[in-house]
Amino acid sequence: MNLFEDGFQINLTEITELLITVGLKILLLLIAFAIIAPIGRKAISGAINRISRHRKIPEPRTKTLERLTINLFSYIMMFVFVVMLLEMVGIPIGPLLAGAGIVGLAIGFGAQGLVSDIVTGFFILIERQVDVDDYVTAAGYDGVVEEVGLRTTKLRGFDGTLHYIPNREISGVSNHSRGNMRAMIDIGIAYDENIEEAVAVLQRVCDDFAANDERIKEGPDVLGVQTLGSSDIVLRVLGKTTNMEQWGVERDLRKAMKEALDAAGIEIPFPHQVYIEKQGNAEA
Amino acid sequence: MNLFEDGFQINLTEITELLITVGLKILLLLIAFAIIAPIGRKAISGAINRISRHRKIPEPRTKTLERLTINLFSYIMMFVFVVMLLEMVGIPIGPLLAGAGIVGLAIGFGAQGLVSDIVTGFFILIERQVDVDDYVTAAGYDGVVEEVGLRTTKLRGFDGTLHYIPNREISGVSNHSRGNMRAMIDIGIAYDENIEEAVAVLQRVCDDFAANDERIKEGPDVLGVQTLGSSDIVLRVLGKTTNMEQWGVERDLRKAMKEALDAAGIEIPFPHQVYIEKQGNAEA
Amino acid sequence: MNLFEDGFQINLTEITELLITVGLKILLLLIAFAIIAPIGRKAISGAINRISRHRKIPEPRTKTLERLTINLFSYIMMFVFVVMLLEMVGIPIGPLLAGAGIVGLAIGFGAQGLVSDIVTGFFILIERQVDVDDYVTAAGYDGVVEEVGLRTTKLRGFDGTLHYIPNREISGVSNHSRGNMRAMIDIGIAYDENIEEAVAVLQRVCDDFAANDERIKEGPDVLGVQTLGSSDIVLRVLGKTTNMEQWGVERDLRKAMKEALDAAGIEIPFPHQVYIEKQGNAEA
Amino acid sequence: MNLFEDGFQINLTEITELLITVGLKILLLLIAFAIIAPIGRKAISGAINRISRHRKIPEPRTKTLERLTINLFSYIMMFVFVVMLLEMVGIPIGPLLAGAGIVGLAIGFGAQGLVSDIVTGFFILIERQVDVDDYVTAAGYDGVVEEVGLRTTKLRGFDGTLHYIPNREISGVSNHSRGNMRAMIDIGIAYDENIEEAVAVLQRVCDDFAANDERIKEGPDVLGVQTLGSSDIVLRVLGKTTNMEQWGVERDLRKAMKEALDAAGIEIPFPHQVYIEKQGNAEA
Amino acid sequence: MNLFEDGFQINLTEITELLITVGLKILLLLIAFAIIAPIGRKAISGAINRISRHRKIPEPRTKTLERLTINLFSYIMMFVFVVMLLEMVGIPIGPLLAGAGIVGLAIGFGAQGLVSDIVTGFFILIERQVDVDDYVTAAGYDGVVEEVGLRTTKLRGFDGTLHYIPNREISGVSNHSRGNMRAMIDIGIAYDENIEEAVAVLQRVCDDFAANDERIKEGPDVLGVQTLGSSDIVLRVLGKTTNMEQWGVERDLRKAMKEALDAAGIEIPFPHQVYIEKQGNAEA
Amino acid sequence: MNLFEDGFQINLTEITELLITVGLKILLLLIAFAIIAPIGRKAISGAINRISRHRKIPEPRTKTLERLTINLFSYIMMFVFVVMLLEMVGIPIGPLLAGAGIVGLAIGFGAQGLVSDIVTGFFILIERQVDVDDYVTAAGYDGVVEEVGLRTTKLRGFDGTLHYIPNREISGVSNHSRGNMRAMIDIGIAYDENIEEAVAVLQRVCDDFAANDERIKEGPDVLGVQTLGSSDIVLRVLGKTTNMEQWGVERDLRKAMKEALDAAGIEIPFPHQVYIEKQGNAEA
Amino acid sequence: MNLFEDGFQINLTEITELLITVGLKILLLLIAFAIIAPIGRKAISGAINRISRHRKIPEPRTKTLERLTINLFSYIMMFVFVVMLLEMVGIPIGPLLAGAGIVGLAIGFGAQGLVSDIVTGFFILIERQVDVDDYVTAAGYDGVVEEVGLRTTKLRGFDGTLHYIPNREISGVSNHSRGNMRAMIDIGIAYDENIEEAVAVLQRVCDDFAANDERIKEGPDVLGVQTLGSSDIVLRVLGKTTNMEQWGVERDLRKAMKEALDAAGIEIPFPHQVYIEKQGNAEA
Repeated sequence: MNLFEDGFQINLTEITELLITVGLKILLLLIAFAIIAPIGRKAISGAINRISRHRKIPEPRTKTLERLTINLFSYIMMFVFVVMLLEMVGIPIGPLLAGAGIVGLAIGFGAQGLVSDIVTGFFILIERQVDVDDYVTAAGYDGVVEEVGLRTTKLRGFDGTLHYIPNREISGVSNHSRGNMRAMIDIGIAYDENIEEAVAVLQRVCDDFAANDERIKEGPDVLGVQTLGSSDIVLRVLGKTTNMEQWGVERDLRKAMKEALDAAGIEIPFPHQVYIEKQGNAEA
Repeated sequence: MNLFEDGFQINLTEITELLITVGLKILLLLIAFAIIAPIGRKAISGAINRISRHRKIPEPRTKTLERLTINLFSYIMMFVFVVMLLEMVGIPIGPLLAGAGIVGLAIGFGAQGLVSDIVTGFFILIERQVDVDDYVTAAGYDGVVEEVGLRTTKLRGFDGTLHYIPNREISGVSNHSRGNMRAMIDIGIAYDENIEEAVAVLQRVCDDFAANDERIKEGPDVLGVQTLGSSDIVLRVLGKTTNMEQWGVERDLRKAMKEALDAAGIEIPFPHQVYIEKQGNAEA
Repeated sequence: MNLFEDGFQINLTEITELLITVGLKILLLLIAFAIIAPIGRKAISGAINRISRHRKIPEPRTKTLERLTINLFSYIMMFVFVVMLLEMVGIPIGPLLAGAGIVGLAIGFGAQGLVSDIVTGFFILIERQVDVDDYVTAAGYDGVVEEVGLRTTKLRGFDGTLHYIPNREISGVSNHSRGNMRAMIDIGIAYDENIEEAVAVLQRVCDDFAANDERIKEGPDVLGVQTLGSSDIVLRVLGKTTNMEQWGVERDLRKAMKEALDAAGIEIPFPHQVYIEKQGNAEA
Repeated sequence: MNLFEDGFQINLTEITELLITVGLKILLLLIAFAIIAPIGRKAISGAINRISRHRKIPEPRTKTLERLTINLFSYIMMFVFVVMLLEMVGIPIGPLLAGAGIVGLAIGFGAQGLVSDIVTGFFILIERQVDVDDYVTAAGYDGVVEEVGLRTTKLRGFDGTLHYIPNREISGVSNHSRGNMRAMIDIGIAYDENIEEAVAVLQRVCDDFAANDERIKEGPDVLGVQTLGSSDIVLRVLGKTTNMEQWGVERDLRKAMKEALDAAGIEIPFPHQVYIEKQGNAEA
Repeated sequence: MNLFEDGFQINLTEITELLITVGLKILLLLIAFAIIAPIGRKAISGAINRISRHRKIPEPRTKTLERLTINLFSYIMMFVFVVMLLEMVGIPIGPLLAGAGIVGLAIGFGAQGLVSDIVTGFFILIERQVDVDDYVTAAGYDGVVEEVGLRTTKLRGFDGTLHYIPNREISGVSNHSRGNMRAMIDIGIAYDENIEEAVAVLQRVCDDFAANDERIKEGPDVLGVQTLGSSDIVLRVLGKTTNMEQWGVERDLRKAMKEALDAAGIEIPFPHQVYIEKQGNAEA
Repeated sequence: MNLFEDGFQINLTEITELLITVGLKILLLLIAFAIIAPIGRKAISGAINRISRHRKIPEPRTKTLERLTINLFSYIMMFVFVVMLLEMVGIPIGPLLAGAGIVGLAIGFGAQGLVSDIVTGFFILIERQVDVDDYVTAAGYDGVVEEVGLRTTKLRGFDGTLHYIPNREISGVSNHSRGNMRAMIDIGIAYDENIEEAVAVLQRVCDDFAANDERIKEGPDVLGVQTLGSSDIVLRVLGKTTNMEQWGVERDLRKAMKEALDAAGIEIPFPHQVYIEKQGNAEA
Repeated sequence: MNLFEDGFQINLTEITELLITVGLKILLLLIAFAIIAPIGRKAISGAINRISRHRKIPEPRTKTLERLTINLFSYIMMFVFVVMLLEMVGIPIGPLLAGAGIVGLAIGFGAQGLVSDIVTGFFILIERQVDVDDYVTAAGYDGVVEEVGLRTTKLRGFDGTLHYIPNREISGVSNHSRGNMRAMIDIGIAYDENIEEAVAVLQRVCDDFAANDERIKEGPDVLGVQTLGSSDIVLRVLGKTTNMEQWGVERDLRKAMKEALDAAGIEIPFPHQVYIEKQGNAEA
């Protein structure tokens, strides 16, 4: 508030001098940081890569650590930069943070979200809930992890979109890259068909796959009659595949099963409807 | 804020020395923890297994206890580590936690979520709401429990996904692994059929199952006419099976009932519709 | 924080001695509680059963009281145990609870949920909103009450699932076991039929049930034309039955009514549609 | 915390004496309250009934007042009982309530819900939003009011379920028992029919009802063409009836109108569809 | 807490005397208020009516003011009554309100809702968002305003239900009684018809209405082709009517337009479907 | 609380005198404000209109400013009035606002909503998010802005309803009156038709419009095949029009395109279905 | 509150003088700011453009920086203006902000939202989550970024609407302009067709596109059988395109594939249904 203390009698020369001094200091600061920042980043990147080669840390974990450390380093640099800048223009950061007036209160509330982000991010990292390149669902977003930062997590969606999620929004994480995945197919046959015959035909397809397809880890097996639908009897087939191969396996199984049922003359029915004609009375 | 007290006249040698001393201390600390941690984990694991063999504690409970204790041990190690680390670089943790400024407030709010996690987790464990390998529904996630930690519960979903759920998100737990489960089938017969005959046919299938299938614990029985549908009369069959066998029993019952109805010549109808043709007037 | 006061010069022998002393104390405590707890539970159970036999308290209420008292006893034992344990390892519980620093604040917020649980549980019990074996809906869960604790209520769902509900989640309770229940059937007849005749046929079925079925407490009666549907005229039948028998009565009524309408030659119509053929123009 | 002050040297005789003295006191207290409570309730019930007969207060209001006063009396008794009990076992209630430590804070938050209940309940009563036997919708529950307490409102649902609603959950009350209710029927006629003729037929039915049915307070009248549906022209009929008779009147009107339209040869149409056959090309 | 200070040695005579004295005072108070209240209400009602006749204030505003003032007067009377009553039985209201213990905190939180009600109610009144007899939508309720109180707003729903809405629940008000209302009709013609001809026919109906119907304020006009539906071309007609007459005008327009289209031989089509018969292969 | 200090010995004459004095003061105040208020409003209105004519401020902005300033003036007048009134009857506003007791707390919470309204309103105005006569969507309401006040925004809905929205409810504003608007039409052609021919026909219509219709600002152009529907191939047409003309342009385009496709003999298909007759077996 | 200290004896001349002095000062202030503001904005705009030309900063980033800096400059100007204005009329801003009474509390809560806006906006900018001209989804709004301010983000929706989003509402950002985008087409073929042949036909179309279309970055490829639909076998085609070209590519692919399937005689089927005629019994 200093600037307005004596109303309109502001001394122009003094202000100009002040502006120049401060401006020069800021310039120096900018240059210093512009030099230090990239060097720091490279040093971190190099160090982490060297260590992980030595200790054979798996690659996704290395990537996660690298990006996180650089992310952390950037925030610290920024924080130091802002503190130095504010002190240069004469705003001491300490009292501001300690002050308990309205400004302090408002900042405290604003910072609360930031602290939530960091605390959540910290536990996501420490409990290794996600690694870079994992396919996860979090906070209603679906995608492959590009970076796990202290404040924000970045997911690359299936359609190419990049999602930025503040960590505080992440209440639960579903990680789709931790172990074998389920392949499941529900296939309908006509009510006229022999169920046992159809099961046998489908099971033969399953056994073929189990024998010849390296992506398959368990099963697949025909479980039995899942539903008595309105026009078909639905049979369920279930297996396990290596991670991220479940969709491919399901697509291949669907094609093979359709062809096997065709070959065995077993009908996959269209929707059915029974028609009763009523001639006399067209009125309700 | 010490580092910036005297602006740009920072003594490089002093900083270097400081960095080296601190660096060495951190290294020693890292090594110490890298040695103690795995030993501690093994000791805990061994002790729990020995005790549970002695006292014949059921296996799921042993697993739950083992994972929880290791989880707890890890958090304590981490906490001790962070405290020692912070003291080495000259940040005393005590005053920081006690301080009531903005930073303290923000940390307090952030920690609130953590305390909620721990309190909820504590009661989930002490009231034995879940054990490892139970099939549960919690916080909108469905799956088999892999670990119940103080802060996070891990569920393995049916499709292979691993769900990480912060305990505070768990408002109610539905445990599907506590006792016999219901097998229920709704089967539709045509409006033309004799209801009593159909009930008798289905009850015969039920009695066969009750007599010959070890998975069945109660019933199954035909309860009667559940709905008068738009095209069929829906009969309900209800029984109880051993835990996790309900789906298999339902599938087997469905197949047997469909075949029994076919054998008895009782129709499971397709959707029906009555058609009235109106020739004269094609206009509304 | 005592342990880290003098950095790395920790005296190993002292620590070992300390660990042994504390360990022994904890062991004694564990044994003491392992003996007292089951005795206490049996004593409580016995006392309550004796009293309720004397004073002819209905069985569900006795069960509720018994489980609640044991539940309460367990929590008090646990609380005493934790307090003694903490004092043994040198953490006085009093100051911790009274302290108003960040830790205190965080604990206070965490405890808030617990207090909500207890307050709600207390009123559920004192207002007798539920008894053990009641069929209730609460917090979106449906089931038969297995236990009403101070903190948690347990419901056994219809499909066999056991639901654990923290009492604070229970905002309103729907108790389905307090008095006679409604049996209601909506049955559709064709637009061609005589409404009065159909009502008479259905009322005759109702009167038969009212005369011969002990489960029925009021009615059932045919109320009249509930809806003029798109293909049928819907008649509503309403009655009251003894508690939990409503579904059985509805099923039996449905069967009897269907058969009575068949016998009287009154049609229950399939969906109808009027078809108008338009030959000339196949284009929109 | 007194009990654990001197660790394991607890004097058994002292504890036994203490337990007996306290036990006797509690017994006396229990007996005293078991005598006073029912007497108080009867006195209240009698007094209110006498007064309301004198001053000709309508019956629902009398019921509401009676149940509320008894409810209030019970809570006061309970409060006095708990205070006396706590003082007997040496826990003074005053300091506990005044204390501002964590326990106090937690209790304060827990009590907040209770105060909300009472404040809301107080205004529901004083603004006479509901009386016992009113049919109301509140907090998503539907039913007839059985009791309006300070903390909880009890509704008897249409299906016989008893709903317990904490007053704080009641954000708005819809009282269906305050004045005449609407009877509304939407009836569809065929597009071929003459609208004016149909309106005349329906209005004649309405006039019959208005003249002969005591339940009817206003109308009913045919308002006109409410919708041009996909298969029918929907006419709306609207009237007012005495409270709770609206459904009966609607059912009777529906029957009478259907029969009147039949008699006048006006069609209530089934869903219509125009079919265009296309022979040459079965492919999309 | 005074009553229980000396345990069981309560002096019965003293209590009796006290009860009689207090009882008499309360009786006097009750009588005083029973006399003052109705007089006050009448005085207020008379005064407001006289003033509004003088100053020609529109009737709805007068009603609003009258009901509000009486409502306000009742609350003040009640407040005075409660304060006097509490002081009679020895509970001073001042310290209770000022006290900052748990009780005070709880009351403060409870009162918060009440203050919200009053603040919102105050602005609804001062900004004249609603008047008595306005048709409004607020807080999810629909109806005609019966009373706007400081705490509660009463709406009479279309079906006769009386809705009590605490003002705090009202986040936005939609007032349907402020100015002319829209009449809008979407009418479908067959794809075979000439659009321009149909528009001309409908516009002629509109012009007739505009010329002869006093309820119409703007238009109505045919805007053009609103949608190309699956079976019909939808034309939109739009106009403005005097308030609350929009439904009547819409109904009359619908009838007139249907008859005009019939007269001009323009088809309002039923849903259409093209059928392609496929004979050879009944299998999917 | 002064009034009740000495119980029932209230001096009637003193009260009467007091009432008369205060009454007179209030009357004077009322008259003063009744004179000042309209003069102030006219002065403001005149001043703003004069300035905006001088500086050629666009009309909507002028209207916004005028209504806002009057709105602001009214609130200030009201505030001054209330303060003076309270001081007349002896309630000093200063201490009341500064007091930190329960009343103060409650008022503070109540006022919080008001402050939120004003802060949000302030930014809506200063960022010029809306002007009077803009068509906007905010807080779930749709309409033309009638007034933007500090506390409330008024929208006139399309159906004539006047919406009052407290500014705090406005979380995001969608302003439909800032720039040209999109006209988009999806039109389906039969699977048998030649896509390129249809695109050419539609593009010719678009070019006609682009050449001859002044409302059009960009395009319209046929983009291509948007969907392969179940019965038709959907082509999308996209253009830009002057603000608020988008619906008119869309309606005119729809009509022109339908007629152009008719002229070119390209079919807009009804829903299609392939029928397979199955004679032998009427059973599922 | 000064103005009302001595009731009605306000000295008119003094007020007039005061008003004139203050008025003049405000006028001077207004003029000063009216001159400084546009100059400042131009200077900023010029400086940023010069720097970014020098350092070859990409254009969207330049635009973002320019608009942000001007936005920031405007807010600072405004803040300075308000502070000076308030001091002129004698309201010191410092004490007001520091005051902890009710007004202070209310302002603090109100300001909380503003701080949230700024904190969130700050991180959106610093983490470069969006740039001007990016196509993003945030807070439920969809559109192209027009400006990212400290408090508000402006999106231009696809239909031309301008969305103003307070930054605090933005919980997660989906940026659709960061990298190549997915083109995905699901196309159904008849159950009679040979799957492998159809895949070959579609893959040939894909290869053509991959070879000749510059917009395509990866694929497109036919993945296989995605679903066995009720009337068709759905094949999925997947590829990557340059950003914002995905819709164009999808439209072109759809047309080419439809034509290729036509050329190869492979049917894209309409919905199928199997009809079973039942003659004897028209009753349910």
